[in-house]
Amino acid sequence: MNIQDLQQVSQQLRDNRLFEWFVVSIIILSALLIGARTYPVSPAIIEMIHWLDIAITVLFLFEIIIRFAATPIKSRFFHSGWNIFDTLVVVVSLMPINNSEMALIGRLVRIFRVLRMISIIPELRTLLNSLIRALPQLGYVVLLMFIIFYIYAAVGATFFEAINPTLWGDVSIALLTLFRIMTFEDWTDVMYETMAVYPLSWIYYLTFIFLTAFAFLNMVIGIVVNVLEDEHARERAARDQENNPVTNEALLLEIQSLRAEVSSLKNSRHL
Amino acid sequence: MNIQDLQQVSQQLRDNRLFEWFVVSIIILSALLIGARTYPVSPAIIEMIHWLDIAITVLFLFEIIIRFAATPIKSRFFHSGWNIFDTLVVVVSLMPINNSEMALIGRLVRIFRVLRMISIIPELRTLLNSLIRALPQLGYVVLLMFIIFYIYAAVGATFFEAINPTLWGDVSIALLTLFRIMTFEDWTDVMYETMAVYPLSWIYYLTFIFLTAFAFLNMVIGIVVNVLEDEHARERAARDQENNPVTNEALLLEIQSLRAEVSSLKNSRHL
Amino acid sequence: MNIQDLQQVSQQLRDNRLFEWFVVSIIILSALLIGARTYPVSPAIIEMIHWLDIAITVLFLFEIIIRFAATPIKSRFFHSGWNIFDTLVVVVSLMPINNSEMALIGRLVRIFRVLRMISIIPELRTLLNSLIRALPQLGYVVLLMFIIFYIYAAVGATFFEAINPTLWGDVSIALLTLFRIMTFEDWTDVMYETMAVYPLSWIYYLTFIFLTAFAFLNMVIGIVVNVLEDEHARERAARDQENNPVTNEALLLEIQSLRAEVSSLKNSRHL
Amino acid sequence: MNIQDLQQVSQQLRDNRLFEWFVVSIIILSALLIGARTYPVSPAIIEMIHWLDIAITVLFLFEIIIRFAATPIKSRFFHSGWNIFDTLVVVVSLMPINNSEMALIGRLVRIFRVLRMISIIPELRTLLNSLIRALPQLGYVVLLMFIIFYIYAAVGATFFEAINPTLWGDVSIALLTLFRIMTFEDWTDVMYETMAVYPLSWIYYLTFIFLTAFAFLNMVIGIVVNVLEDEHARERAARDQENNPVTNEALLLEIQSLRAEVSSLKNSRHL
Repeated sequence: MNIQDLQQVSQQLRDNRLFEWFVVSIIILSALLIGARTYPVSPAIIEMIHWLDIAITVLFLFEIIIRFAATPIKSRFFHSGWNIFDTLVVVVSLMPINNSEMALIGRLVRIFRVLRMISIIPELRTLLNSLIRALPQLGYVVLLMFIIFYIYAAVGATFFEAINPTLWGDVSIALLTLFRIMTFEDWTDVMYETMAVYPLSWIYYLTFIFLTAFAFLNMVIGIVVNVLEDEHARERAARDQENNPVTNEALLLEIQSLRAEVSSLKNSRHL
Repeated sequence: MNIQDLQQVSQQLRDNRLFEWFVVSIIILSALLIGARTYPVSPAIIEMIHWLDIAITVLFLFEIIIRFAATPIKSRFFHSGWNIFDTLVVVVSLMPINNSEMALIGRLVRIFRVLRMISIIPELRTLLNSLIRALPQLGYVVLLMFIIFYIYAAVGATFFEAINPTLWGDVSIALLTLFRIMTFEDWTDVMYETMAVYPLSWIYYLTFIFLTAFAFLNMVIGIVVNVLEDEHARERAARDQENNPVTNEALLLEIQSLRAEVSSLKNSRHL
Repeated sequence: MNIQDLQQVSQQLRDNRLFEWFVVSIIILSALLIGARTYPVSPAIIEMIHWLDIAITVLFLFEIIIRFAATPIKSRFFHSGWNIFDTLVVVVSLMPINNSEMALIGRLVRIFRVLRMISIIPELRTLLNSLIRALPQLGYVVLLMFIIFYIYAAVGATFFEAINPTLWGDVSIALLTLFRIMTFEDWTDVMYETMAVYPLSWIYYLTFIFLTAFAFLNMVIGIVVNVLEDEHARERAARDQENNPVTNEALLLEIQSLRAEVSSLKNSRHL
Repeated sequence: MNIQDLQQVSQQLRDNRLFEWFVVSIIILSALLIGARTYPVSPAIIEMIHWLDIAITVLFLFEIIIRFAATPIKSRFFHSGWNIFDTLVVVVSLMPINNSEMALIGRLVRIFRVLRMISIIPELRTLLNSLIRALPQLGYVVLLMFIIFYIYAAVGATFFEAINPTLWGDVSIALLTLFRIMTFEDWTDVMYETMAVYPLSWIYYLTFIFLTAFAFLNMVIGIVVNVLEDEHARERAARDQENNPVTNEALLLEIQSLRAEVSSLKNSRHL
């Protein structure tokens, strides 16, 4: 069997619907094993999980090799971010675990194997791509929001540090406290504490809530309008093509040719 | 009176507006009885509730029989999920209650009788159907959200179990804790507890909140866009039919026939 | 001066822009007095507030009389809900206060005088009317939501009463607790308490949150779609009238009359 | 070098892309210094921050002078709010700090220098302007909401003051408490406290939540509809210009001129 044949066989296997379902069920099994490990289980089951884990790693390795073999130009395989991610996960899973540091990374990598679900199911990949595409549109609103947060954090860390260093100790702690206030989580406790020293500090909290709520609202509306616009544009294009087989231009040409005919008729008569 | 007549009489009774209102008021009475039972009441009233409950069960049985008799092809009666639900509720209500286990189920069934409101009022049935139709569109977003939840729960159960087993004991408890964090319910208490051990664990909480909020936002926008699109499609179809009795195609045909006439005129002249 | 003249003078005064601003500033003053009363003030200021209050009541009485005098057909004055409200507020303000019971009602009526702002400023009246018009569209969604609430309240009052009678004592207390859960206010405390007895009771809370959130979402989308549809309809009507002075029908008539001319030309030639 | 040349050189420098990036990085450095100051730092670093701060102030002064020099008509420089803001920030930064009062203002002004980011980056300025433009549309809804808040605050301060003066002491404290209830922050604690005295006071809280939620919803929808409408109008205008190079009017003129030709043909024949 030469390389050409191997590639074809790999491609057929990779594009096989059954093989895809098999890989998805292996990923689900892998996710269940991760979950099972968090429960207090008997040593026998731990042993079983251990062997199942090795089997899953081998299967994943096999699947990556199939996918790599199915790629016509090998160097293009690593152009896809998902392929790099999949290879990395398999490689780290294969590494022998010696100390507790490595064991932790090993467990983390096993958890992230669940993300392979996204790389396998095309609908999830599409969904994620559309989510990522929506991000840059939000760039400047996020920047504006961060400026608001930073200014309020600096003011808070300057004035309220003496009142409660746990909440306002420095600018990064103050940023976390402000995020907490934005989620309305026990924000009045924070406010009443500072109002005991600065009675007018409610202005600080209320303006912050209004500014972030307003900026957030704008963000949401921004996304909605963008998404709706895209839909409209696509819809309109489809409609123009489908509903208007005869355009006004076509009618104009028709009338003009008719006119030429009438003119020629007239001219012929004058001769 | 033969079966044919019985069916017709049943149909007339079932479609009678007054009968419908009578059944609705019986359901409301049934709901009020369920509510009344939760208050501390005198034995005399409990007795009264008991007899009223029997009367309601009998009336519901009578109504189901009428509906069954009104169905032309009897086997089709159980094709509707609502008919199966109604019959089940009546049958369980009729069963004699012996022990406390059964009494509890009996009470539950009586509570679920309030759901019959939906099966009786057509507008509520339509509304519920439209809600159920919107569900499949959300399928993949829900799957993506579950993957996010599962990965965070596995990470949480792995790292934070030692800190607070009540919140992070195993993967299912961690999922519940994460749902709590998504609703912003005392999420800072959970965070501050883990930050005492892992000072950088705020990254875990903030990324989780952003990811779920962003995914949820996408879900909402998905529904809105879908609903608006359906409305637009319906609207456009109505407009096309109504506003455009004369299409450009019709004009084209008209001009072409005119041209034929002019041509024939020209030809006749040349003869 | 006869009645006819009185009516005309009243009408001129009522529609005077300055008079409207005067009444608005009286209402604002009245609102400020209500606010001032809640602060601990010296007896001299209480005395002043008392006399100002009498002055405001007299001015309001005068304004109502003007508005009544300006109405051409007197019986129609009370067809407007706002006129009835205004008259009632003035009449109750005029009644002598003897005991503490009456004093409380008197204070309440003075507070509700602020609502007169809405009856005076036309833009606020329009806004409120549009809000009220949006309500009936929500009717069935509200009914569906109430059915969900009632069923969960009945189940909660049945199973959780023994655990915490303060939260689940009867069906009405359970309804209030469920509303609290819908606002995510300390809902986990309520849940953990019942999970100690029924470990699976998290299903009860999570399904409730999903159902009410989903129903609420549908409500919001319902309003948005309705509002947008109204806007679109208005917009479309405006566009059809403005952008399309020449319809396809007009073109058809034009072409048909042209055809008739050509036909007559042809016929005349054949003669 | 005369003034004309100076203006041109300044203009070139101001519009230079590199110079803009340099100013932005200075602002970011200034923001980082503010943040650094909130951490406990060694005296050496405080000294360094002090000198860096002076350098930043000098650079800002230089930048303002450049911008002023680049303006052709000097009096127009202060027509822009951002220019006034920038000048003020630099002037206050330049003032010598003597006592602690002034030191605080000095620190505040340094924090507000971060806002210069908005005046420098054109996209942020556009975003902010669009946010500010959306505000007046909300005017009457905000007024209506304030009336609701004020009435509920007056009622709350009247009835609940004796129960908890910290929350309901006077009308302004009651307004703050109501804002807290609107954010659902521990609102049930407030409610249960008053329900112990007035068992029906849940009506007060529930109606308030419904009214403010409904009014808020209307506000959000109002903005969305306005934004979408603007988008639609712009889109429609673009479409009309682009997609319809041949209008029905043009066709009509064409047909009419054709008719004239046919008529002339007919007439010439009759001669």
